[in-house]
Amino acid sequence: MSFSKITIIGLGLMGGSLACALKKSGRVGEVFGVDLDEKALDYAVREGIIDNGSKEIEEGVNHSEVVVIATYVGIIPQVAMSVASIASKGTIITDVGSVKGKIVKEIEDRLPSHLHFIGGHPIAGTERSGVWASDLRLFKGTRCILTPTLKTQPEALSKVKSLWESVGARIFSMDAETHDRVFSFVSHLPHVVAYALVNSVASQRERDNMLDFAGGGLRDYTRIGASSPDMWSDIFLMNRENVLGSIREFKKALEKIEELIAKEDLRKLKEELDKAVRIKRNMDK
Amino acid sequence: MSFSKITIIGLGLMGGSLACALKKSGRVGEVFGVDLDEKALDYAVREGIIDNGSKEIEEGVNHSEVVVIATYVGIIPQVAMSVASIASKGTIITDVGSVKGKIVKEIEDRLPSHLHFIGGHPIAGTERSGVWASDLRLFKGTRCILTPTLKTQPEALSKVKSLWESVGARIFSMDAETHDRVFSFVSHLPHVVAYALVNSVASQRERDNMLDFAGGGLRDYTRIGASSPDMWSDIFLMNRENVLGSIREFKKALEKIEELIAKEDLRKLKEELDKAVRIKRNMDK
Repeated sequence: MSFSKITIIGLGLMGGSLACALKKSGRVGEVFGVDLDEKALDYAVREGIIDNGSKEIEEGVNHSEVVVIATYVGIIPQVAMSVASIASKGTIITDVGSVKGKIVKEIEDRLPSHLHFIGGHPIAGTERSGVWASDLRLFKGTRCILTPTLKTQPEALSKVKSLWESVGARIFSMDAETHDRVFSFVSHLPHVVAYALVNSVASQRERDNMLDFAGGGLRDYTRIGASSPDMWSDIFLMNRENVLGSIREFKKALEKIEELIAKEDLRKLKEELDKAVRIKRNMDK
Repeated sequence: MSFSKITIIGLGLMGGSLACALKKSGRVGEVFGVDLDEKALDYAVREGIIDNGSKEIEEGVNHSEVVVIATYVGIIPQVAMSVASIASKGTIITDVGSVKGKIVKEIEDRLPSHLHFIGGHPIAGTERSGVWASDLRLFKGTRCILTPTLKTQPEALSKVKSLWESVGARIFSMDAETHDRVFSFVSHLPHVVAYALVNSVASQRERDNMLDFAGGGLRDYTRIGASSPDMWSDIFLMNRENVLGSIREFKKALEKIEELIAKEDLRKLKEELDKAVRIKRNMDK
């Protein structure tokens, strides 16, 4: 499948990487980028990440078969509505947000019937950010989750699948609610925990010593504890119920270990830690 | 400085790695290993990790200038007392335990005055374990913390320093109490949290989906969440007060983030996450 024009709104790490991977695929006539940051646009054109770019979405949406919204999750529904107000019949809108339930619902509820929306979440990303970190191999071999609904038109779904396959991603379908519960545990909770762990060190008397000896285990967390606060605070609020639920579950597991340490119950403590090791083994299979 | 005979009790990853690094240094006449596991002893002799070995500590302690206890932390004081009961005047006992306060106190309180004890903690290790994972470069460039006290004899301290320097470690001195507080935060707490995080996934309905998508952040934790439960349950109990204290501090930091998500206070949530990023930056300096 090939595309005459694909527009990407938001030239960050995800948008920029998708743009250059699409260009490289040779299946897209024009890759158009929209971003409010002129420096990002200039850089993207100069480096051949996009064919053309603009600060205005009108120019981008015009004649685009697919519009990919790659902004922070908090503004995706709003951006989608701006796109919807000017897009011509049959335009497919999709996104790369790490939260799906709220986004899919808000957009589907308000989208005119002559347009299509498919929620997407490519499982890629690093702690780096910005168009400057664009990597045309970012999606190679990674999974991209799509969250079609009963309203989804099969042709529109095929087009979005084909778009992601053309940059090397493998497609998984999942309903938006399952997606959000799964990702609250495997991604959002670990980020909450990493931020909290690093912050708990901050207020300590021996803070400097602690940072010096972070190699003892703390450093494993700090990669994700250094991810963009703007992006992650948005994600936590967009997936609020699930994130709060996963924090509650985590606190239960933590308090179980805490209690066994307090009671000095070595046998049960070992059993509790053994559980984690067995799960990890399943994970590696 | 050179040594006629050094004995290592406990041929695990740490003991085995220290043994072969000491042999390699060329400064030790005889590296003797003591372990209850005959297979570990046979392997260590066959692979040239130790010069000689025995299941009995008597043979090991006999004529040793330094005895290094590299067992699980829970039995270090007891092993030290067994060594003390047969060691000749001037023998130096040291250890590689990740907890120092309780160990140093228990041993110093009971050690006969003709012997010396210096607490040690080389900051090395991986999630692998056993003599089979021995690595003669394990201590190269890593830090080794020694925890001398007012009772410590300077000559004995110099010998233990020299022992670690001969395998490439850099020496740091710290009092045992500070050590235990610092390591409860940089090492023990991160392990507690990793175990709890992995366990919190175990009880979930979408568990399989969760393990499939662990790359979203969870996997970063599982390296340390798969460390030996026997070793870590021992460490958590040996450093019980500090570990419980660090869990309390962590829960405060976690509940602050939880509260801001519950309240949907985007501005303060961002501030809270920003704190962690600033600390991480200090860490990388």
